[in-house]
Order: sequence, then C-alpha cells, then structure tokens
Amino acid sequence: MYESEDALAVLRKMGRSVVDSIQNQQFPAIDIPDRKTNNIVYDEASGRFTLGPSTSRRDSSNTKHVRSFAQLMWVADFAKRLLESSRTSSLRDLYYSSEAFGVKFADQSESDRIVTDLECYTGHPRESFGIFPEEHSSIYGEIVLRYTVPGYEGREIDLTISPDGLPVGPAIVSAEPVRSEARLVLAVESGGMFSRLIESRAWKRFGAVLVQLGGQPPRATRRLLRILRSRLDLPVYIFTDGDPWGMHIAKVIISGSANSAHISDLAVPDAKWIGVTPDDIENYSLPSEPLTNADLKRLDDLTRDVRYDSSKWAGYIDGFRRLRVKAEQQAFSRYGMDYVVDRYLQDKLV
Amino acid sequence: MYESEDALAVLRKMGRSVVDSIQNQQFPAIDIPDRKTNNIVYDEASGRFTLGPSTSRRDSSNTKHVRSFAQLMWVADFAKRLLESSRTSSLRDLYYSSEAFGVKFADQSESDRIVTDLECYTGHPRESFGIFPEEHSSIYGEIVLRYTVPGYEGREIDLTISPDGLPVGPAIVSAEPVRSEARLVLAVESGGMFSRLIESRAWKRFGAVLVQLGGQPPRATRRLLRILRSRLDLPVYIFTDGDPWGMHIAKVIISGSANSAHISDLAVPDAKWIGVTPDDIENYSLPSEPLTNADLKRLDDLTRDVRYDSSKWAGYIDGFRRLRVKAEQQAFSRYGMDYVVDRYLQDKLV
Repeated sequence: MYESEDALAVLRKMGRSVVDSIQNQQFPAIDIPDRKTNNIVYDEASGRFTLGPSTSRRDSSNTKHVRSFAQLMWVADFAKRLLESSRTSSLRDLYYSSEAFGVKFADQSESDRIVTDLECYTGHPRESFGIFPEEHSSIYGEIVLRYTVPGYEGREIDLTISPDGLPVGPAIVSAEPVRSEARLVLAVESGGMFSRLIESRAWKRFGAVLVQLGGQPPRATRRLLRILRSRLDLPVYIFTDGDPWGMHIAKVIISGSANSAHISDLAVPDAKWIGVTPDDIENYSLPSEPLTNADLKRLDDLTRDVRYDSSKWAGYIDGFRRLRVKAEQQAFSRYGMDYVVDRYLQDKLV
Repeated sequence: MYESEDALAVLRKMGRSVVDSIQNQQFPAIDIPDRKTNNIVYDEASGRFTLGPSTSRRDSSNTKHVRSFAQLMWVADFAKRLLESSRTSSLRDLYYSSEAFGVKFADQSESDRIVTDLECYTGHPRESFGIFPEEHSSIYGEIVLRYTVPGYEGREIDLTISPDGLPVGPAIVSAEPVRSEARLVLAVESGGMFSRLIESRAWKRFGAVLVQLGGQPPRATRRLLRILRSRLDLPVYIFTDGDPWGMHIAKVIISGSANSAHISDLAVPDAKWIGVTPDDIENYSLPSEPLTNADLKRLDDLTRDVRYDSSKWAGYIDGFRRLRVKAEQQAFSRYGMDYVVDRYLQDKLV
C-alpha cells in the first residue's frame, strides 16, 4: 500500500540537488520542515496535528551541521538501496548497518531521529522506504489482500486463513486490498480480546475486520486502519480498556500524535471510540479498580491536551474523575465468556 | 498437538473422586505434587528439572484449605466447560470469569497459581485445557500443519503462507504436523532477525523452520519446539543475543525452568545454542557494549544454577566475564545486511 516508485523518485531528486550544488562549487544544504513544539499545530478542521510553515536548514558548510547532514545522506542512501533491492530493514538493523559504512551514530535514538528527518524532508513515512519498527499487532477478517513483497508478488491472502490472526508486518502493510466482505473495522487493545472475538465468530456476526493493537499501536498499524477506512470504505471502531491510557490509544488513532505531525496520512478522524467508557463501567456494572496516582496525573495531562477540547472527550475525562475507577476490556467476562459479544458489542455496533 | 480427550478424562476422574467422597459422607481431599523448592530436583540424566515425590494435601475439612480447594474445583470446572465447547481462554479471562460464579481470587496471580495446581494434579499443561497466556512468538517455514480448532478442523496450513510469519497462538499450537520439507529448526530471539531471515530466504538455504521467540518464550512456544523435534525429527538450533539473558533463553529451552518442573514435555535436551557466544563476539569482531552491573549480577546467579554445571556452559559464563562485553544478534549488520546469513549462519549450521 506504499508507493515505492514515488519514494525512490524523491530520493533521487534529493541526491541530484546535492550533487548539483557540489558541481556548482557550492556547499549543499537541505531545508527540513521544523518539528519543534512551536511548529506543531493542531488543525481543528481535520482534527489532527500537522507541521507549520517553519523549516530548519542543514548546511554542510556549517561545522555544527556536518555530522547530521552526513548522517542524513547516509540514511537516504540506505533507504535507496533498500528500495532498489526490494528489501526491508528494522530501525535497529539500520543503526547497526551504519557501522559497515563508518557512519557514526551515538545510539539508536540518534539514527531514529535522522530517519524522522528523512520523513520530514520527503513527506514519505519510513515504511515507504522499507524501514519498520518491530511489530506487535495482528489482523483477522474477511478481506483479501494481494502481496507486493518479493517472492510473493501477486499472491492473494485471505485474512481469515489463520485462526490466530496474521501479524501486521511489512508484507501485510505493503499489500493491496483486492476485495472485502466486511462491513466495519473493530480495533481491540488486547490479544486476549482479539482471540475471543475470532473464536466466538464475532467477526462474522458483525462483519468485522479485527485488528489487535497490542497497546499503543505502531504507526504501520494506524496507517493500515486508515487504508481500510479510505480504500475499502469501512467505518473504524476502537475498543480499549476503560482507563486514561486505553482512551488515549483511541485518541491517537483518531487525531494522530505530535511525534508524527509530519506524516499526513496516519489519522482516522472519523474513527469512533466505543469504550470501555466511564459510563460503560457504571451501566454494565463492570468489576473495576481504583485509579492510581499515575492514572489521575495522566487525566490532568489530557485535560491540557488540545485533542481533548471537545465536550465529548472532556466528558470522558470528567467521567473517569467522577467515578475514580477503571475497568479492563476483559472485565465483561464477569457475566460469562460470550457477554461481551452478545450484549456489549451488540449494543455498540448494531 | 494436545490430547483434549485425555485432559477431559482426567478432569472427569477428578470430579468423580470428589463426588464419591461426598456421597460417602466424607470431606473430599486432593493430593497435589508439591512444587516447593526442596521438591524441585534437577535430573542429571534428562538434563531438566522435575518434581520429587512429595505431595501436599488440600483437605476441604480444614478451614485453611477450603478457599483454595473451592478455587481448584472451579478452575477444573471452567477447564471442563472450555474443553466441552472447544473454546479457549486467556489466563486473564479466566480470572475475570470467576466473578460470574462468585468465586473470589485476590488477583490474577492467585488464579494463575490455582491453574498451576490443576497442572500439577492432572499432569497436563494448561494449554491442553484450552488456557493460554497472551502470545508473542511466530513461526515460518516449509511445514504443513492440520488445524484441529473448531471452524478450521482438517484444514491444512502451509507455514510459508504469510511472509510476515504466523503467530504461535492456540490454533498453531493445537495443530497436527502433516508433512515437512525442513531439515532443522532455527529459533531466533528478535523479530528483526526473524524478518531478516525470511526476507533473505535463509530459511530456504538452510532448510530451516524459523521460530521467533520474542525474548523468553512462553511455554506454548517451548512445547512447539519440542513437538517439531520429536514428531518431525528436526534438530533445534537457538540463536539469541550474546548476553547472559540471551544465553539463558537457550538454557530454559534446553533444560526447562523450575517454574515448569511439573510439566514433563517442555524441554528440548538436545537443542543447541549456536550463539552469539562470547567467542563469537571476539571471532567476528562484533560491535559490543560493556556488561552492566545487572548483567554481571546475572552471571553470578547463573554460576550457582545447576543447569550451568557442565564445562561447556560454565565456559560461556567465564567467557562473558573475561570479555566483559555483550553483543546483540543484530550486531552482524556491521558487515552488511546479508553477512549474518552468508557468513555466520553458514559457519554455524552447515
């Protein structure tokens, strides 16, 4: 689902501009959209973070910039070689590979940052260059995708082939949607709930593509949700634990994060958090635990977060503060194994 | 790969003995193999931990035992209902389900402990009752399995179907081996290395079934390794980070752990740790980091561990102490993306 030709073209153009400068006897320089806090703006209309107009210049004539300029050139070259050989790399492997070329990074967080620079400069997410973090999400449902990775090009995969689900790895994320019998996407926080919904055939009952988030999901998973929304026209529902952290997993899927403000196609603005909401904890009499100090502090942080300005989201925060308790999505098991499907999801999705 | 008929029979026998006691006007009691430290013995011959002959009695006439006796009865009943309906449950769901029946557990660690009691009493691992932890392992290679889970019974799955691998979940773990083109099993610690070996077609070159351990692997994954060893006669090689923790991942696969001394078919005594060994760090001039205090403390612990008594394993400990450094399996990327396959694994596996 990534445009590797586009990504390759933008890298070639980047390299060409550097070579041109050198041939014209000038020090090459590169302007990168600035991602400092004061250039990250919340766009009310689209309901997500974006970068403002400010840029910062990496100028190879400035000795303070030489290191990061050279690192960026190397990362761009590494990305180009990945694309040309249809290979992928983890962020960790990229860091270690740099040693083969005598390029120095203090640690992986420095090389990760340079990868983000490349994203900002090119406007393409790292995944379109074949660079992935380690994955921990999975997917299951009535969708057929067509692989584009080498050795599997053109092969179709039915996402109900494995009753344990399929990992959301480079092959799935780069595959093309072919057809779908599904009516909606249901993203769930925990692996236990994901397994439960497969096994109880809830996916069939609700026509749902199930996506296991595995906590705060990696960007590739958020992108996959967006693709399912836009390419297959499936509404996206998010089902998390009923606590400030679960609520925020949903918020990041819906509105994006400041860290990825430079990537435009990650948010799913019309995705819906079905719960567990504070009201659900009361209405379904769920087993709950008291909010900890960390939970309460988190609610304070979210109060100051522009993404929670709407009355609906401010209401969720108030709800948690009023109840002072939280409940996991597994808590529905109190009423039997199938209650979460027969009653809760039936209430929320139908 | 689990015998659910056997598991059901043993639960029925357990229930029958309790009912018989009651009908004979006696308080029912149950004898459970004791898993206190002094009853966990290291069996030199088989190279693994087992339980000694001591048992502990749960007697329902003793008020101190009533709670755990009742909890054990409920867990056994829950397991029986899972088996009869061909369902599975996570340990977490089991904990929450107890509330539906008015059975009280202080927290999940208490219900987990009672599940272990059931394992000890019956001699069957929890997985044979359909009770699983959350998974984080995956598998890829030229093996065909036949599913036994409901909705998929009899369907065959080729473990090369997904280039991202397949999760080692309840369906894979309960499937039957049908046929194999593989010559060996290569278990690797990290997801990055697993992806690398799939993408570079190292699995084809070495005839390897790849198993991603995801750190210290859950028991279901260790059991899967044992099944691949015994049922398909495949030698098992383990490739981890070169540090005390990676080495111990291999040791637990080979010799088992004290925590699972009551389960007999988990260890793979003839599995081989290929590295990253201390010698490898030197011989391949790998980028390395100094051992931390926690690493050194861990080496001290392992020195006192009976599983490290052999000269080979004591030698690894000495090697780390001498070098005072560690290296990740990704460190081979220093010499290019394919070096780990073309050189290191070629050296170790061929």
